[in-house]
Amino acid sequence: MNKVNLEEKSLLFSEYWSPKIVGELNGQNVKLAKFKGEFVWHKHDKEDEMFFVVEGTMKIEFRDKTVLLNKNEFLIVPKGVEHKPVAENEVLVMLFEPATTLNTGDTQNELTQHKLDWI
Amino acid sequence: MNKVNLEEKSLLFSEYWSPKIVGELNGQNVKLAKFKGEFVWHKHDKEDEMFFVVEGTMKIEFRDKTVLLNKNEFLIVPKGVEHKPVAENEVLVMLFEPATTLNTGDTQNELTQHKLDWI
Repeated sequence: MNKVNLEEKSLLFSEYWSPKIVGELNGQNVKLAKFKGEFVWHKHDKEDEMFFVVEGTMKIEFRDKTVLLNKNEFLIVPKGVEHKPVAENEVLVMLFEPATTLNTGDTQNELTQHKLDWI
Repeated sequence: MNKVNLEEKSLLFSEYWSPKIVGELNGQNVKLAKFKGEFVWHKHDKEDEMFFVVEGTMKIEFRDKTVLLNKNEFLIVPKGVEHKPVAENEVLVMLFEPATTLNTGDTQNELTQHKLDWI
């Protein structure tokens, strides 16, 4: 049982769109990720997904609107809702979601991460 | 589906040891709480509990050690482990735990919050 410092963890990786697991509780994973650029449109059929911005700014595009997320703001994307994360500049994001969640949801391509590393 | 700004939410309440619900996903609650002083020793028999420090500093005492948590650090307390949160000065904490979790766990007293408010 050790505490997790998000800044320290963020120094351990540099790749974008490749979430790392930093915690697990009640079948849920806590993940840390760096985003830059545009991700793919996707949805998660069975899992709600929470994006919490630790450092920087990002947008989450939906089919009918776009939500801007600043530091210390979060958004919960309900299951089944198509979304596309976008970050003009690098952003550090903490994700909460079930351990089963695939990063690209129903859209599997070269960005899909089938096995996430613990850091 | 609206974003949540933790600083704005923190202005909506002032009482200590009284978590407010700010989000829900996959049967889990995201809660925001202010702590100051010493809480009671307790454990959660069925729920792991995550403490994420948004602003300030706190300690979580265990029977065999104490963990200091600073801003942007979190600790996951596994189910069944006795703990006592302590904050010398006011601290703003985001909690992540199943919707069923009672704040005082197996120790019910005047601090127990049976029904939490959404803010």
